[in-house]
Amino acid sequence: MKTYGDLSPSLRTIMTPGPVEVDPRVLRAMSYPILGQFDPEFTGLMNQTMEMLRSLFVTDNQWAFPVDGTSRSGIEAVLTSLIEPGDTVFVPVYGRFGYLLMEIAERCGAEVSFIEKEWGSVFDPEEVIRHLRQHRPKIAAMVHGETSTGCMQPLKEIGEACRELDILLVVDAVATIGGTPVETDEWKLDAVMGGTQKCLSVPSGLAPITYNDRVEAKVLRRKRIERGLRDPKLAAAPSREPAGLVIRSNYFDLAQLQDYWSPARLNHHTEATSMLYALREGLRILLEEGLEARFARHRQCEQALTAGIQAMGLPLYGNPACKLPVVTCIPVPDGVDGESVRSMLLEDFGIEIASSFGPLKGKIWRIGTMGFSARKKNVLHVLGALEAVLIRHGVSVARGEGVQAALDVYRNGKEASYA
Amino acid sequence: MKTYGDLSPSLRTIMTPGPVEVDPRVLRAMSYPILGQFDPEFTGLMNQTMEMLRSLFVTDNQWAFPVDGTSRSGIEAVLTSLIEPGDTVFVPVYGRFGYLLMEIAERCGAEVSFIEKEWGSVFDPEEVIRHLRQHRPKIAAMVHGETSTGCMQPLKEIGEACRELDILLVVDAVATIGGTPVETDEWKLDAVMGGTQKCLSVPSGLAPITYNDRVEAKVLRRKRIERGLRDPKLAAAPSREPAGLVIRSNYFDLAQLQDYWSPARLNHHTEATSMLYALREGLRILLEEGLEARFARHRQCEQALTAGIQAMGLPLYGNPACKLPVVTCIPVPDGVDGESVRSMLLEDFGIEIASSFGPLKGKIWRIGTMGFSARKKNVLHVLGALEAVLIRHGVSVARGEGVQAALDVYRNGKEASYA
Repeated sequence: MKTYGDLSPSLRTIMTPGPVEVDPRVLRAMSYPILGQFDPEFTGLMNQTMEMLRSLFVTDNQWAFPVDGTSRSGIEAVLTSLIEPGDTVFVPVYGRFGYLLMEIAERCGAEVSFIEKEWGSVFDPEEVIRHLRQHRPKIAAMVHGETSTGCMQPLKEIGEACRELDILLVVDAVATIGGTPVETDEWKLDAVMGGTQKCLSVPSGLAPITYNDRVEAKVLRRKRIERGLRDPKLAAAPSREPAGLVIRSNYFDLAQLQDYWSPARLNHHTEATSMLYALREGLRILLEEGLEARFARHRQCEQALTAGIQAMGLPLYGNPACKLPVVTCIPVPDGVDGESVRSMLLEDFGIEIASSFGPLKGKIWRIGTMGFSARKKNVLHVLGALEAVLIRHGVSVARGEGVQAALDVYRNGKEASYA
Repeated sequence: MKTYGDLSPSLRTIMTPGPVEVDPRVLRAMSYPILGQFDPEFTGLMNQTMEMLRSLFVTDNQWAFPVDGTSRSGIEAVLTSLIEPGDTVFVPVYGRFGYLLMEIAERCGAEVSFIEKEWGSVFDPEEVIRHLRQHRPKIAAMVHGETSTGCMQPLKEIGEACRELDILLVVDAVATIGGTPVETDEWKLDAVMGGTQKCLSVPSGLAPITYNDRVEAKVLRRKRIERGLRDPKLAAAPSREPAGLVIRSNYFDLAQLQDYWSPARLNHHTEATSMLYALREGLRILLEEGLEARFARHRQCEQALTAGIQAMGLPLYGNPACKLPVVTCIPVPDGVDGESVRSMLLEDFGIEIASSFGPLKGKIWRIGTMGFSARKKNVLHVLGALEAVLIRHGVSVARGEGVQAALDVYRNGKEASYA
């Protein structure tokens, strides 16, 4: 019989836009023996996690819980629970993950309309609002931070317009949550979907979401209790249909998920115990650090990184006015094989940075400064290593300047200029 | 600001039908620092996990990988990728999880037909086959082991009939995989869906599945590449539609999932790193023990438990001829509050056993002997504690006999009789 070796993954410096390094406290949390899903100790931990998620999302919403799946499971849970076939959904697209919102909405049976911005920039909110006023979709779906292009879309004006027009605004904040402000209530976002493996620095596998009573009202119109949990005499009878069309997914049915997360604890799935431990610990770490301090740390690491990149003599990709503060994109210099640079970084320096997708595939590198990976040690390490690897690839760089510029930022709190 | 205490869950003896206790080696695996998802070391671990899953499912299928979600995510991924709206799906139901298959199939837009067996028994395969011949559904979906009733359905004859009739047979083996034989190829099962938190003794959060080329062919007819990953010039153009109807879910689209698990590594989600470490370690432990030895251990624990229960003077629930070897159901004695017994077991003895659903809610207790929880220590502990708790609840039991009978099974290899 073939045998398989002991697990012993190499220690990496992970500077991609996710997954990023995990705080050892979170890793430790996952190593605790598990509790049963209806053990009062466990449901207590679930409730604490909901409370902490409300702080993370800066919301008074009742509903804030993780969907058991990777980030896009949260996106699909919200969209599939909201969209009835034929509903109009509008998606302003400025990168790959905008396409994903379209893709999911289409598969839900929506009539999807979209506008598109050249990758590397974002929308003037007025442009989006004009379209909203004109076409009055039922739902608008937007990405807050596009990791594919390193851009971030301002949402406050769009949120206000949607509320006024009675459009539900659904926001993918997978890249931004925990790294830069996401103000659910203040910006009037109806549903926000996050991820764990980016600025929260928890391994991939849960998708924290929150939604308000406007979303809940639509979801409850579509609610149907699972056959196996109904009154036994009715279980095998034809389903009593809800007012709205039944949600097309059982797994992603928010009406069932919120029953599971409510005091009723109506059985749906078996909560992913160890991942819940990890998320709870990640949120504890985040709240102990404090949202403001955490965002400041992310900004400082970004400033050090961008100062270093530019001091080295490399430009930054994208419009600096809308730069996503947790991802920095760098055009691959002409004549350089971007993948070869990435491989050498990984193999010789144990550092992982990312490439990109679609029109940017092979054209830019993407460096994340997210969560536990957003540390001075890591930023200095990646700048030093990138310089060494670029020299080996024949790129002319200002030797030694990158690390010095980053050190200056950390020493002096000097602001980096993107110009 | 409210503060939250250090995680320190109590140590429980978990004797439910899942989630069950996790081997410390698996807990340790989750505490390792993570790798990036496209790090060659990580994709190597993914490939090893696929190989080991093929051994678990006893199949030569190319496709055997986990879906990132709890057990029912695997079920929904297979059903939603297979079922085109209007497809005929037949579900023989003998417990709660049969209803779940119906529920999911209905939400996929299937024309669902079903037959039902009184809870506590299973189908004579001929009964199912008669229906299959008469109605010729496109897909048949069945539960292998019903944890809600503690019954197990023989599948070999049904598998052969489905193949002959060109019906796709999809099997929920969440409760049985890793605890009792599941012969994917030998029984001609087209798709099998498992779970991690039962006999594999890995925390909930991944759903290992396998499917053959008959399933793949249908899935590929419905394949559509995600917009954000298409040729950039085509990305925003109207979708090129596949031959079949586009799969209604992005997250559960097996065509995309298998691309992600293939050497192409086409980006879909971000694999749940720590859960993958856990699954890999759980599978290593399983293969080191050996499937046959593992099944024998499960049988022995079941025999010890059932001998003990009966020696105590309690009957067993359900038809012994179709008993699920990893779950034992016991009718709650008349006049006893089943929930009070469960609470006392948890609070005083740190032992968790389960109640049931629907028509059996409050009527039976369910005790699992699954995976790492299927240990002599646990079986003896639960029998001794149950006796003590029942005495406190005024139930007349044969004092001391339960543990002795179980010890006899372990000492003598004596077979328990269910009669």
